[in-house]
Amino acid sequence: MRIVVLAGGIGGARFLRGLKKAAPDADITVIGNTGDDIHLFGLKVCPDLDTVMYTLGGGINEEQGWGRTDETFKVKEELAAYGVGPEWFGLGDRDFATHIVRTQMLGAGYPLSAVTEALCERWQPGVRLIPMSDDRIETHVAVTLDGEQKAVHFQEYWVRLRASVDAHAVVPVGAEQAKPAPGVLEAIAEADIVLFPPSNPVVSVGTILAVPGIREAIADAGVPVVGLSPIVGDSPVRGMADKVLAAVGVETTAAAVAEHYGSGLLDGWLVDTVDAGVVEQVESAGIRCRAVPLMMSDLDATAQMAREALALASEVRA
Amino acid sequence: MRIVVLAGGIGGARFLRGLKKAAPDADITVIGNTGDDIHLFGLKVCPDLDTVMYTLGGGINEEQGWGRTDETFKVKEELAAYGVGPEWFGLGDRDFATHIVRTQMLGAGYPLSAVTEALCERWQPGVRLIPMSDDRIETHVAVTLDGEQKAVHFQEYWVRLRASVDAHAVVPVGAEQAKPAPGVLEAIAEADIVLFPPSNPVVSVGTILAVPGIREAIADAGVPVVGLSPIVGDSPVRGMADKVLAAVGVETTAAAVAEHYGSGLLDGWLVDTVDAGVVEQVESAGIRCRAVPLMMSDLDATAQMAREALALASEVRA
Repeated sequence: MRIVVLAGGIGGARFLRGLKKAAPDADITVIGNTGDDIHLFGLKVCPDLDTVMYTLGGGINEEQGWGRTDETFKVKEELAAYGVGPEWFGLGDRDFATHIVRTQMLGAGYPLSAVTEALCERWQPGVRLIPMSDDRIETHVAVTLDGEQKAVHFQEYWVRLRASVDAHAVVPVGAEQAKPAPGVLEAIAEADIVLFPPSNPVVSVGTILAVPGIREAIADAGVPVVGLSPIVGDSPVRGMADKVLAAVGVETTAAAVAEHYGSGLLDGWLVDTVDAGVVEQVESAGIRCRAVPLMMSDLDATAQMAREALALASEVRA
Repeated sequence: MRIVVLAGGIGGARFLRGLKKAAPDADITVIGNTGDDIHLFGLKVCPDLDTVMYTLGGGINEEQGWGRTDETFKVKEELAAYGVGPEWFGLGDRDFATHIVRTQMLGAGYPLSAVTEALCERWQPGVRLIPMSDDRIETHVAVTLDGEQKAVHFQEYWVRLRASVDAHAVVPVGAEQAKPAPGVLEAIAEADIVLFPPSNPVVSVGTILAVPGIREAIADAGVPVVGLSPIVGDSPVRGMADKVLAAVGVETTAAAVAEHYGSGLLDGWLVDTVDAGVVEQVESAGIRCRAVPLMMSDLDATAQMAREALALASEVRA
C-alpha cells in the first residue's frame, strides 16, 4: 500500500508515527511543508522537515514536540553575546548541526530535496520525506503592529508574536513561481491513498497545496483522499490555527475546515467524537465523514486514528 | 607610543598579553595572519585572528592556547553523526558561534576587516586587530603522502598530520594577488615601533610579509623593527616551526631565523639566554642582538620580554 501524507510540523509528525504503527508495511511518502523555512544566522532552517525527521528518527524533544532531545544552547548564548539575534527562535546546539550541514550542502549546489534525503540517511525515519518544493517559498503574515500594516515572516508571527495579533492575510510568497520537488507528483500519481494529518489547514497543508500542480495532482489521482480534523470542539488541538483560519475566512470548526478543503479534493473526513454533530453537515457537502477520537494522547491512540483514516479510505474506495 | 605587531596564533597572542602589560598606554595595532584561515562546514574559520581575540579578550582556553574556555562539542558530535567532517579540527560550540557570525557577515557583504572589528566589539581585546588582507589567502604545504606529491591546506598539515611528514614547500596561495586590508599600511606608516613576536617565521609572520606592500612598508617605515626568536636552543618553543623552516631552507636556529628576515627588514633581534653564543653572529649580519630569557612561562615573564624588545627598539633608534 502506497500512502502519501501532506505534513506540517508537530501534528503531522506525531500522526506519522501512529500511521507507521498502524500500517507497518506501507510505503509512505511524506510531502513536507517548507513555507515556514527561515534563514537564521545565515543558515537555512526547515522547522517542519526537521520535526518530521527528528520525530520519526527518534531525536525529537518529546515534551515540546520540536527541536532535539538532550539539547544545549551554547551557540545561541554566544550569538546573543555578539548581539546577533533573533533571540526568540530557539535553536539548540544539536539542532544547529543540522542547519549547518543543510546550508553547506545547499551552498555546494544540492537542491533541498537531495539535502533532505542525505539528512534522512542518518535519521532513517522509515518514510520517504520530500520537501514540497526545491524552490524558496516563505509564508508571510499580514498584521497590524503598533498601528502599522506590515508583513512578517510566519515564524515571527507564530514564535515571536505567538499569534497574539490578528492575521489579515497569509501569503505563501514565491509559491506561484514554484515547482513541486522531484518525486512529489510521481508519488501522488502512484499513491493508493492520500492523507491530510491533523496539521494546520492554512500554513501547513494549505501551503503545500499552494504549490502549482500539487492540488491538481491529488484531485486527479483517482484515489481516496482522507483528512483528520485539527479542530476539536471548535478550537485547535494545539497551536493557534484559529488565527490563520480567520485570515482566510474559515470558521474554526471541524466542518468548516472540511468545506475549506472541499469535496473536489477531499473524499473523507474524520472529526472528533465531540464534533459528531457535524457529520451530517460535512456529508451533505459531499465528503464522507466519521466521528472518532482524535486526540493524539499516545502512540496507540494515534495509531488508532490512522487505522480509522485508512478504514474510511477503504470505505470511500468501495 | 604606536606599536604595530605582526601576529600569528598562540605565540603572538601570548606575547601581546605581555606587551599590553609592559606598555599599558601604547596604541597597539595587530596585523593578524589569515593564511591559516579555512572553510569548514561552509563556515569561515580564522584561527589566528580568533586566538588573538580570545586571548586578549579573556575567552581563550588557557591550557591549549586556542579555542574557547568552558567549551562543549555538541555541534561537532552531531556533524560527525551526519558523517560530515573533517573530525580532526576541533571546533567547539562556543567557537562555532564566532564562525557563524563571521560567515553571516561576510555573506552580507562585509569585508573580513569589518567583520573582525565587529567581533572585537564584544571581546574588547585592547588592541586594534586587523587581518593582513581582506582577500582570500590560504597557505598550502607541498608534501609526499603515500608516495604521492600533493599540496594540503596548512591546517591539514599542522593539525591532521601534526607536521609528521616533511614540507617540500610552503605557499601562501593567493598572496600575490592580495592587497593589505584597509588600515594595515597606514598603521605601519604611523608606527613608532614594529614588533615580530615569537611567532612562526614562515607560516605566521612570513605569510603576513608575503602580502605585497607589507614588507616594503615595514622596511620603509624608518622605525625600529624588532623581533623575538621563536627558536630557543635550536628547537621551536612550541609548535613545529622546524618543519616549515626546512621547507624554505632555513636552519632551526635563532640566528638563521634572524638572517632569514634579514637586516633589510629587521633592526633588532632577541634570542634566549641559552643562545647567547649567536649574538655576535647576528650582529655581524647587521642586526642588533641581545640574549634575554624568552620563555613565556607566565604573564610577568612575557611582559619582561616585551620590555626587552621595547628597550632594544630604543637602543636601535638611538
